[in-house]
Amino acid sequence: MGKNKFSFITGGSVTTPQGFVASGITAGLKISGKPDLAMVASTVPANFAGAFTSCKFAAAPVQLDRERVRHQDRVRAVIVNSGNANACTGSIGYDNAVKMCEIAAREMQIAPEEVLVSSTGRIGVQLPLDIIEAGIVKAVAALSEDGGDVAAHAIMTTDTKPKSHAVEVELSGGKVRIGGMTKGAGMIAPRLTVPHATMLCYITTDAAVDNRLLAEFAGSGADSSFNCINIDGDMSTNDTLILMANGLAGVTVKAGTEDAAVFYRALLALLQQLAREMVMDGEGVSKFVTINVRNAASATDAYQCAYAVSNSLLCKTAWFGCDPNWGRIIAAIGYSGAEFIPENVKLDYNDKPVVRHAMDAGTPERELAELLRERDFTVNIDLGAGDADFTMWTNDITYEYVKINAEYHT
Amino acid sequence: MGKNKFSFITGGSVTTPQGFVASGITAGLKISGKPDLAMVASTVPANFAGAFTSCKFAAAPVQLDRERVRHQDRVRAVIVNSGNANACTGSIGYDNAVKMCEIAAREMQIAPEEVLVSSTGRIGVQLPLDIIEAGIVKAVAALSEDGGDVAAHAIMTTDTKPKSHAVEVELSGGKVRIGGMTKGAGMIAPRLTVPHATMLCYITTDAAVDNRLLAEFAGSGADSSFNCINIDGDMSTNDTLILMANGLAGVTVKAGTEDAAVFYRALLALLQQLAREMVMDGEGVSKFVTINVRNAASATDAYQCAYAVSNSLLCKTAWFGCDPNWGRIIAAIGYSGAEFIPENVKLDYNDKPVVRHAMDAGTPERELAELLRERDFTVNIDLGAGDADFTMWTNDITYEYVKINAEYHT
Repeated sequence: MGKNKFSFITGGSVTTPQGFVASGITAGLKISGKPDLAMVASTVPANFAGAFTSCKFAAAPVQLDRERVRHQDRVRAVIVNSGNANACTGSIGYDNAVKMCEIAAREMQIAPEEVLVSSTGRIGVQLPLDIIEAGIVKAVAALSEDGGDVAAHAIMTTDTKPKSHAVEVELSGGKVRIGGMTKGAGMIAPRLTVPHATMLCYITTDAAVDNRLLAEFAGSGADSSFNCINIDGDMSTNDTLILMANGLAGVTVKAGTEDAAVFYRALLALLQQLAREMVMDGEGVSKFVTINVRNAASATDAYQCAYAVSNSLLCKTAWFGCDPNWGRIIAAIGYSGAEFIPENVKLDYNDKPVVRHAMDAGTPERELAELLRERDFTVNIDLGAGDADFTMWTNDITYEYVKINAEYHT
Repeated sequence: MGKNKFSFITGGSVTTPQGFVASGITAGLKISGKPDLAMVASTVPANFAGAFTSCKFAAAPVQLDRERVRHQDRVRAVIVNSGNANACTGSIGYDNAVKMCEIAAREMQIAPEEVLVSSTGRIGVQLPLDIIEAGIVKAVAALSEDGGDVAAHAIMTTDTKPKSHAVEVELSGGKVRIGGMTKGAGMIAPRLTVPHATMLCYITTDAAVDNRLLAEFAGSGADSSFNCINIDGDMSTNDTLILMANGLAGVTVKAGTEDAAVFYRALLALLQQLAREMVMDGEGVSKFVTINVRNAASATDAYQCAYAVSNSLLCKTAWFGCDPNWGRIIAAIGYSGAEFIPENVKLDYNDKPVVRHAMDAGTPERELAELLRERDFTVNIDLGAGDADFTMWTNDITYEYVKINAEYHT
């Protein structure tokens, strides 16, 4: 377990923490016939927190979950359907989200207010409620302690693989576990505003954590994980991060304690792992690129600089072409709005100097090109203007990205 | 000529106004052997104004031209080379820009301070001065009243066609002419900051206009033309707009007069035509899309909303796929930062209702898909939140765009 006091559990998922069950089934929302409805539930009422999209056209399930966060102390389950976003569906859409909770509650013999709901898929189309109802009945019946993996499959849209992990954390009162699953893989971009999150991500833990501390973890955790990734610069109407804590490990995490710090580090490692996998599984992605901005004049400058590079189509297509073309990165740094003296900026690919004194640093282009042929590399930017840092994870833009998005109906 | 008091001249170019000559030759900077050096000159000293990139890594020629704008009253010529940006080239690069002016001045028997210089092409490589010198000698010798078209060819990089136009304007004192040429076709995105411009654009006129009024025209003109286009969200280190007025028509345009208004309308029509052609000739572009935002709460909101839609990779790839997928547009409007009540937003493709009351407006998808198969269509967004408007011109993102930019070395 080492000095971090946490470790990843092989094959871990949302059902790794005690008292959590999950399922993933085919309701029939996707034409492909792939799994499209997942549930995660706790056998006892769980504290919870959520962070949601800051898009003004928030989907019906996001609106409903926000109300739950405001009015509800504990929940028992979350339903997630893929294949239909239930966004821009008006009052009918909202009523359908409410009905999804009612159906699950009826099947589980709990209160409708104890159910959260998420949707992802096409915008602007009403959910076929008969299909959804039959699906929820099936999903509740299928809830199992082994259901974490199938649930992670069922929330996928253009993802190519499920993204599921769990960690075990050693606290002063004993061990607790945290599990998580997430899906991408398009409309993925960060916003610095808190609270907010990107895409769908569900975190379970058997630690006892109150809602207030869970909400803090959700906000800070999103900011240091999902808010640090940028796949295509777009933000969705449905982005959702849910944390559920059922306390069944019998170990309490209190705000301001060393245990809270240890727990948060473990949670963050889990969130960052899920976020990085989301980038690697982004639509048509062939490169995983880390943008490290160092010594910026302010946190905002560090963020803006990393964001501009991660969002530059010219940088992203150059990476696809394994082209050391640093002029495009320099142009993006230059228009990012960050303050610096051009001559003081240092640009490196991994540890190879690329730009010094606003000129080519002299590393042979052959060496740089070789480095960029790797699937995974780092763009290090030292602005030499202060002491603020920001790291962002991003990817290239490929033919495949264009193909997927010219053909897929969001 | 009609009530606008101006009309486009067939086959017009920068040499259409009296007393302007131009040339375009092959110096040998491009491996392809295509023309790569252009000059535009006035037979008499001309008033001038410039607007330049706001990128902090401004190229050497931009730094030099900015000094000319500050210290110089009149100029005689501008040299433009393609194939090399002379950006991130340090003091050697700056000295090379100065030398380019000195060579041209020597050949033309004028002062070096009367020469402006622009470069476009790869960043971070020193100019081969011997090739440039021989090229400038050749270009000066080739200056001619018929040289407008070859000059427009020689400034191209990934452009597929030259972009050249001229208008004739009827003022109270007589007729004057305005000519212009521009090049794109990558690293093209607007910034609201004034003064600034995107890409290379050269405007000539035989009207007499003082430098102060020319500078006003450059700022407002750029804001209502080149600052209204977004091809790929990137801004270059070399963006330059130059206006030259030599007064040879014997007609003076004074600030605050009706003539100034008429002249500006004609200039703006010319700039907008060149800007629209730049979008249509953007890298790999297959669609020309106008984003009309109406009734925003503020000018900033109108701009942010139009920019978010024009910059959304998901919208741009959907347009390439002729996909009426309005969910992506709604998501972009939603995260743009503009203020509005979602239920009040109206979205139309041309005159077809697409979204009303935050829901599908009921126009059959077949009709929308047919409309999106056109090369040219308009996305009309009414935010219902105020009375500010903004129009932006943009394009789709295609396989060809990715191909060009994965292979081309900027």
